[in-house]
Amino acid sequence: MPASATPEVSRRAVLSAAFGAAAVGVAGCTSSHARPAAATETLAASTAAAAQLEPFHGPHQAGVVTPAQACQLLSALDVTATGAAELRRLLDDWTTAAALLTSGKPVLAPADRPALTDSGEAVDASPSRLTITIGYGPSLFDARFGLAGRRPAPLSELPRFANDNLQTAWRGGDLVLQICADDAQIAYHAHRQLLRLSHGLVSVRWSQSGFRGPQLGDAAKPLTRNLFGFHDGVRNPPLEDSKGLDNVVWAGGTDWMACGSYLVTRRILLFTDGWDDVPDDEQQRIIGRHKQSGAPLSGGNLTSPLDLAASAADGSPAIPLDSHVRLASAELNAGAQILRRSYAFTESSPTGVQAGQMFCCFQSDPRTGFIPIQRQLSRSDALNTHTQHVGSAIFAIPPGVRPDQSWSTALFGQA
Amino acid sequence: MPASATPEVSRRAVLSAAFGAAAVGVAGCTSSHARPAAATETLAASTAAAAQLEPFHGPHQAGVVTPAQACQLLSALDVTATGAAELRRLLDDWTTAAALLTSGKPVLAPADRPALTDSGEAVDASPSRLTITIGYGPSLFDARFGLAGRRPAPLSELPRFANDNLQTAWRGGDLVLQICADDAQIAYHAHRQLLRLSHGLVSVRWSQSGFRGPQLGDAAKPLTRNLFGFHDGVRNPPLEDSKGLDNVVWAGGTDWMACGSYLVTRRILLFTDGWDDVPDDEQQRIIGRHKQSGAPLSGGNLTSPLDLAASAADGSPAIPLDSHVRLASAELNAGAQILRRSYAFTESSPTGVQAGQMFCCFQSDPRTGFIPIQRQLSRSDALNTHTQHVGSAIFAIPPGVRPDQSWSTALFGQA
Repeated sequence: MPASATPEVSRRAVLSAAFGAAAVGVAGCTSSHARPAAATETLAASTAAAAQLEPFHGPHQAGVVTPAQACQLLSALDVTATGAAELRRLLDDWTTAAALLTSGKPVLAPADRPALTDSGEAVDASPSRLTITIGYGPSLFDARFGLAGRRPAPLSELPRFANDNLQTAWRGGDLVLQICADDAQIAYHAHRQLLRLSHGLVSVRWSQSGFRGPQLGDAAKPLTRNLFGFHDGVRNPPLEDSKGLDNVVWAGGTDWMACGSYLVTRRILLFTDGWDDVPDDEQQRIIGRHKQSGAPLSGGNLTSPLDLAASAADGSPAIPLDSHVRLASAELNAGAQILRRSYAFTESSPTGVQAGQMFCCFQSDPRTGFIPIQRQLSRSDALNTHTQHVGSAIFAIPPGVRPDQSWSTALFGQA
Repeated sequence: MPASATPEVSRRAVLSAAFGAAAVGVAGCTSSHARPAAATETLAASTAAAAQLEPFHGPHQAGVVTPAQACQLLSALDVTATGAAELRRLLDDWTTAAALLTSGKPVLAPADRPALTDSGEAVDASPSRLTITIGYGPSLFDARFGLAGRRPAPLSELPRFANDNLQTAWRGGDLVLQICADDAQIAYHAHRQLLRLSHGLVSVRWSQSGFRGPQLGDAAKPLTRNLFGFHDGVRNPPLEDSKGLDNVVWAGGTDWMACGSYLVTRRILLFTDGWDDVPDDEQQRIIGRHKQSGAPLSGGNLTSPLDLAASAADGSPAIPLDSHVRLASAELNAGAQILRRSYAFTESSPTGVQAGQMFCCFQSDPRTGFIPIQRQLSRSDALNTHTQHVGSAIFAIPPGVRPDQSWSTALFGQA
């Protein structure tokens, strides 16, 4: 317990932990962005960890700075409901269901639809760190639901980038559901119950299931290797660095998106056959890191900063000018940073098994995050030969909810 | 150590454990079908378990009676190699690679192809109980490779069943690779290395990745719920019942398939929307079991035998005449039994997320296993309204290999 704690504070901390390790009732969210630090909260958090529970309630939504689970089901939906009342009711039903599902309980049928019993494939199973994260696409803020005046300024369709080859079927969406768990069936089960509750009110626009690969880092800096064999997410802000997350991930301000975030997702095909023909040392020059250790080509180890001024033996830049890590670096993009939280996927194709990455990044503002970084990368990244961006979407990730709130509260305002 | 053990036996047991908990050098395989029992072997097995290793070498291939891992990548391949020599060499390369991969090591480039370095996405990761299982389809035994005389009698194209709606793209295959692991990326990594080694010698005919759902049973009887919410594999022979496995799973005889098995796989779409509209009590009558407990409708608990003669309160059969478990039972199929080892899958479709099951079963002879069972089910199973079989294949699963053998040894004979 912190030295300044009074019994009153202590009681609040316990309640707060019970509500998901979040400082319930505290205005704003600057004091509780990161994972819990106070003693009681840590205790509650370790009990939750043993139960494989990720708290649903809190100032931020789970699934953003939550250490990435093994599986993701990411679905963009179009709203076919007519009018705000139907959309509000859907968001209310989903909030109730998401709170139950993430705590490992079956979904209860709404009173007026008793046939909607849980489909059962998660009975007796652990919640497997299930998180359910909702987001809103720019198209939700058109005339249909009276939300035109509530579109947050950072939420606009992404610009066209060089070398984009986007397919309509993999673009956009009024809503997104990012469902992550350490078990694919638990994620699918949650997705299925939410879709059943939404029957007739949404249609699936696109959906991708993905996997994360073996966990290599620790909980504060979860790392994996992507399907090109290189470390992914090395320069993410540590998940315990509350200040870093404030700067990089969470939206500031005082409007309804405060404590929220913005998700940019890109469906990227990885051409593994061609990549595998590239010798390792050439792969390293394309990425800008050593393949085995993950260290930058400028030296050091996995966690060393990039030394963009360093020279190789022949006098050329140690980290080549067209390498991926150089062009994606904060240094070259006016300080732009993002929290990468991507998943790999594979799909059966007529030519074999196609590999890909469902690139996902969270940021406080895409205009100073993904967009400048991708402008650089799309023009000059040496990696572009081996990838193709075929899908793209952007979503506002609203803040978290308290137990007495619904996802509709912030979106439509308290009134 | 068993009471009868002599120092000589003990040394053999240790060697044997080192070679994968298998009685190397013993003619036949009847004494070592099940998981290891002797003290030294149990010790070796728990060391392997801690390292998340499944032994590759042994009298049987791994991936059959291995407790099902979380993820499966199942690919049917057509051989485009010209002649037996190329096929033998491919099988030799694959055997070497599979032994390395399943022990968590990177694949070494063949001497004549130094560019084939491991693609790297499994570096520093646990092998995650990786198994790699090979099988041969009936078409492999045509004139191309001089194998026409070696086709095992139980290996023929499956008959057409009622209500089949098979798509050419999901049928057959000269070879199958069943790759299972507790981590999807580890399974994909193994698949990728094997495909790279086979470049120009095979093409992918179909490929499906799947997941298993939360583990509910113990290691001897691994159980999960399928995507219809019911227990799957309840009547499998226990994986520690060596006699039961001999009867059900392993091919007898003295030809090259002795100690092997036969895999039948069916790609089945599950129509979850319609299923979810069926009330639970009606679902239970369709399946013949209680949804929550898994007990047969004739009473008892999950592990109780079916009482096919039992009556319900109204005098009708407690387990309905058209229920899935009755029609699939050994009692109604002249004793036919199979070892189910299926995986769930989902795929993005224009109408949302399609669920399915990659049904897999292993048996000593499909003519007295899957075929009579499916004849019954395909005609009368009440479940047929909610499913559709769109893919189908059968493969001979050869016996396991010793460290000095290749998969080509048994297939082509010692000569």
